[in-house]
Amino acid sequence: MPIYNPPLRDMKFVMYEFLGAEKIYQSLPKYKELDRNTLDQILEEAGKFCKEVIFPLNQIGDRQGCIRSEDGSVKTPDGFKEAYAKYVEAGWPSSACDTAYGGQDLPALLNTALYEMMNSSNQAWTMYPGLSHGAYQCLHEHGTEIQKKLYLEKLVSGIWTGTMCLTEPHCGTDLGLLKTKAEPLADGSFKITGTKIFISSGEHDLSSNIIHLVLARLPDSPVGSKGISLFAVPKFIPNEAGESGERNPVSCGSLEHKMGIHGNATCVMNFDGAVGSLVGEAHKGLNAMFIMMNEARLGVGLQSVGLTEVAYQNSVAYAKERVQGRSLTGPKEPNKPADSIIVHPDVRRMLLTQRAYAEGGRAFSYWVSMLIDIEKTTTDEKLKKENADLVALLTPIIKAFITDNAFTSTNEGLQVLGGHGFITEWGMEQFVRDARINMIYEGTNTIQSLDLLGRKVLGDMGAKLKVFGKYVRDFVEEEGTKKAMAEFVDPLADIGTKVEKLSMEIGMKAMMNKDVVGAAAVPYMRVLGHFVYAYLFARMARIALDHQKSDDPFYTAKLATARFYFARLLPEAEYHMKVIRSGADTLMALDASHF
Amino acid sequence: MPIYNPPLRDMKFVMYEFLGAEKIYQSLPKYKELDRNTLDQILEEAGKFCKEVIFPLNQIGDRQGCIRSEDGSVKTPDGFKEAYAKYVEAGWPSSACDTAYGGQDLPALLNTALYEMMNSSNQAWTMYPGLSHGAYQCLHEHGTEIQKKLYLEKLVSGIWTGTMCLTEPHCGTDLGLLKTKAEPLADGSFKITGTKIFISSGEHDLSSNIIHLVLARLPDSPVGSKGISLFAVPKFIPNEAGESGERNPVSCGSLEHKMGIHGNATCVMNFDGAVGSLVGEAHKGLNAMFIMMNEARLGVGLQSVGLTEVAYQNSVAYAKERVQGRSLTGPKEPNKPADSIIVHPDVRRMLLTQRAYAEGGRAFSYWVSMLIDIEKTTTDEKLKKENADLVALLTPIIKAFITDNAFTSTNEGLQVLGGHGFITEWGMEQFVRDARINMIYEGTNTIQSLDLLGRKVLGDMGAKLKVFGKYVRDFVEEEGTKKAMAEFVDPLADIGTKVEKLSMEIGMKAMMNKDVVGAAAVPYMRVLGHFVYAYLFARMARIALDHQKSDDPFYTAKLATARFYFARLLPEAEYHMKVIRSGADTLMALDASHF
Repeated sequence: MPIYNPPLRDMKFVMYEFLGAEKIYQSLPKYKELDRNTLDQILEEAGKFCKEVIFPLNQIGDRQGCIRSEDGSVKTPDGFKEAYAKYVEAGWPSSACDTAYGGQDLPALLNTALYEMMNSSNQAWTMYPGLSHGAYQCLHEHGTEIQKKLYLEKLVSGIWTGTMCLTEPHCGTDLGLLKTKAEPLADGSFKITGTKIFISSGEHDLSSNIIHLVLARLPDSPVGSKGISLFAVPKFIPNEAGESGERNPVSCGSLEHKMGIHGNATCVMNFDGAVGSLVGEAHKGLNAMFIMMNEARLGVGLQSVGLTEVAYQNSVAYAKERVQGRSLTGPKEPNKPADSIIVHPDVRRMLLTQRAYAEGGRAFSYWVSMLIDIEKTTTDEKLKKENADLVALLTPIIKAFITDNAFTSTNEGLQVLGGHGFITEWGMEQFVRDARINMIYEGTNTIQSLDLLGRKVLGDMGAKLKVFGKYVRDFVEEEGTKKAMAEFVDPLADIGTKVEKLSMEIGMKAMMNKDVVGAAAVPYMRVLGHFVYAYLFARMARIALDHQKSDDPFYTAKLATARFYFARLLPEAEYHMKVIRSGADTLMALDASHF
Repeated sequence: MPIYNPPLRDMKFVMYEFLGAEKIYQSLPKYKELDRNTLDQILEEAGKFCKEVIFPLNQIGDRQGCIRSEDGSVKTPDGFKEAYAKYVEAGWPSSACDTAYGGQDLPALLNTALYEMMNSSNQAWTMYPGLSHGAYQCLHEHGTEIQKKLYLEKLVSGIWTGTMCLTEPHCGTDLGLLKTKAEPLADGSFKITGTKIFISSGEHDLSSNIIHLVLARLPDSPVGSKGISLFAVPKFIPNEAGESGERNPVSCGSLEHKMGIHGNATCVMNFDGAVGSLVGEAHKGLNAMFIMMNEARLGVGLQSVGLTEVAYQNSVAYAKERVQGRSLTGPKEPNKPADSIIVHPDVRRMLLTQRAYAEGGRAFSYWVSMLIDIEKTTTDEKLKKENADLVALLTPIIKAFITDNAFTSTNEGLQVLGGHGFITEWGMEQFVRDARINMIYEGTNTIQSLDLLGRKVLGDMGAKLKVFGKYVRDFVEEEGTKKAMAEFVDPLADIGTKVEKLSMEIGMKAMMNKDVVGAAAVPYMRVLGHFVYAYLFARMARIALDHQKSDDPFYTAKLATARFYFARLLPEAEYHMKVIRSGADTLMALDASHF
């Protein structure tokens, strides 16, 4: 049976020592009364809930999956419903929600920590509340007063849940092709007709009502992505008392059988003239949906931070326990029949890869969450703009870089266990299968890479990239003269210079041939991800160096992990730079018919 | 439903144009009557069998898995038994076997082509005959006359099958720890007692008897790996007529639930005083077993060549069919609502990665098979030795490099399909799950890498590597002056020089600290794999260039694939060289307790 222990020590390191969160939040009027004690208590309670309530359901959910009955109802795996009831009872759904609707309005940073632990424990289960929170945010931002009144309190309390309904059989990435129809009714509502696929949490037994946010096309809407509108379509139409009333004709036609996240119901949803109401402006549904999708991209990154952490913990436990062979430098545990496999350099390579990506992903996602909190609450307009730029730049990196790394990491974890890693019982192969979807949904990692390079970097002539570059330059200037920091600062400065040059080169070449952007996008994502991680690990190493004389092994380990990152993972960036410089020709040369 | 078409055109290119197999085999006395017509007919028949009989069972096998009854018998998925009967009836098991026992004695090269297609079609099914063939080879080489008489004809015809029983719950990599006991009986046979795990094809309903080759320890045997002996333990003890007689107390205790290859029965095997006979010398069981394992390593490489090819075919089909978005350089199919996704550079990157690894893996494994055929049949002692050296050097690369690439490739294939790739029905995620085990069994890829660097390269001071280096140097000298070849020859010569230097550097450092070998092994595997592929692709490009004026698009595509390989995949080698130079310190610094 796999294990999971909330990594509270490192979470607190990131929040307090690395981000200086306590001070920063207290400087923001909205959070001025938030103190570390409160935050710590919430973290510990959340960790307990994750470890004790939802983690034990992770393998059960994988084994059982969801079951659809002939009437279209869906039963989630044993224990999911009860765990969700506990989640609601404890008030967790409301933590990052508006107090006006019963929320607790805690920072996004805290919610991020919470979701990391939930995803370590059970990604499939966590998708039910996760998508609900996205629906809450979308309605909170774009809903009419009536919609807010009808839905928000119920979503905040968690007794109702929500979904996003975008994909159709013939379109996913290219939503401009979508066909679901919305016909206006006399009372101002709309009749929605069409089929949506891949709808996570589309139907289930956790909540008494489900609010679907559905992209559809109004009559005579413009062709393509500018003719798409967003609608709120409840499973049960709220009655006058605001409770679940009449059944709306929206139902689960079937469940997908899939590689992972078996515990989450991935539904084909049929809208057979279901009644819905318009969210936001007509034909501007994609704009409203993208807000939800930005949050979702961060959420997917967190799914992968969570999986990276839990896979790491399990492979470390195995590597310490399993004895097999002897150290190349002579027996380390001569009293045992063989040494623990953690003596082998390559086992350590696999463990440290996971560790670096877990710690890097945590530092990265928590930092961006704090930037979002600051952006949303500061009164300093310059800071707001700067943070908005940074968040826009970093969001696709969170989604793609972290999820790619998590697939690598969970696979390294599996490999540490050898044959046992391939066996279901040990839990490692489930982490790999669950991690695989994160590279696909909420916009494939190719789409994220195109967003990063095409829109975020080239789209504004590098302005957003310069905001990040300034952070790096300031740090390099501050630390560059300290001898102990040279091993981190020098390569950081080096990749910074190279990224700047490379980005300009791509921009120049793209003016001649746009395929250059498509050809560079994915390797560019790897380069920029490493640029960010080099910055984060250098800063974390800085803190660890300050504590070198303490006998707290936490800082020794942090420093060792940073050194490993710089020696073994960062050099990947240069490989991708070289690939980018090969341009688009080798990709485009072959005629499609000759593949 | 997935598709599969035997890639006969490229298989024949590799065999005849790239390897010049017809001429070479006719120069070997044993094969002098083999002509291309015969080979082609066999290939085509085999391809038909694979496509029509076993490929349609691949998804069924994955979905159903194997089922164990309370009496310990195991039922394979629907259709597996009937397909195996057809396989036996057509005489396929005997193709590469000794004519003295009813075999056809065809070259290993042909068997390699056959197994590539079988593995593309159904890896789980192919493991039943595959392991059997290994048992045949082991008994053929090490068996007593009685064992040969009892078992070989039945294994050659395929009416009996075989297994390898090595792993125990507490030992896999480190077989020196194994505990299964063999007690001598008065009649010269042995009573085997112990538990083996992860036994592929350990129990099933395809054949009327199963011959287990079992590693066990004789009383008073030396401690460790030098005290292990090999035994042949039949499920049914042959009676005087040589038919299956009395049931031996060896049985399947349970089946493992695992990530992939569901159609193959992965058994816990209990030997409860089962009667067996000694194979080879006492205490030298590992030597005998390693012969089988060398073949098995090539076999695992072929599993991954097969999966790479079939995943490629399916993702290409999808990329041509699926319309979504427009080309960055403007609409390519304006009459359709969107362009086929094959217009996008990054989709092509994913397709070409798969294609390069499929073609590279094929050229590589077929080449090594031919080297084995030559080694086994030539009367030229110098050539025999040279080929034996090359095969020893290249075998771990076949196992590890090809299987790592196949995991990358099948994942790229899955990614091309986006969300559909994650859905079982499309078949892509099964290829990924099946491919995952290949990096683990028959010696993990870490073990292969240690074998390569520690034993094969450093172990003889680079002598074997020099044999390969000479092939490369000869080619570089021959082609180096031709302008059209510069784009291939220059980087090939470059990596050759760097590999030589790097290998010496590692050797020097390893004398001071053996952990350097462990720290370098896995990245060194990537470097050497690319060195080999650069050589193979340069040679294939050479042939394609000769046909540049023909209007056969096959050569255009071959050249494009080679160019893609040099531009986008080969540069990975330099990343790993840099990592190797970082040494072992960043891996070994952290105390085990601080992980």
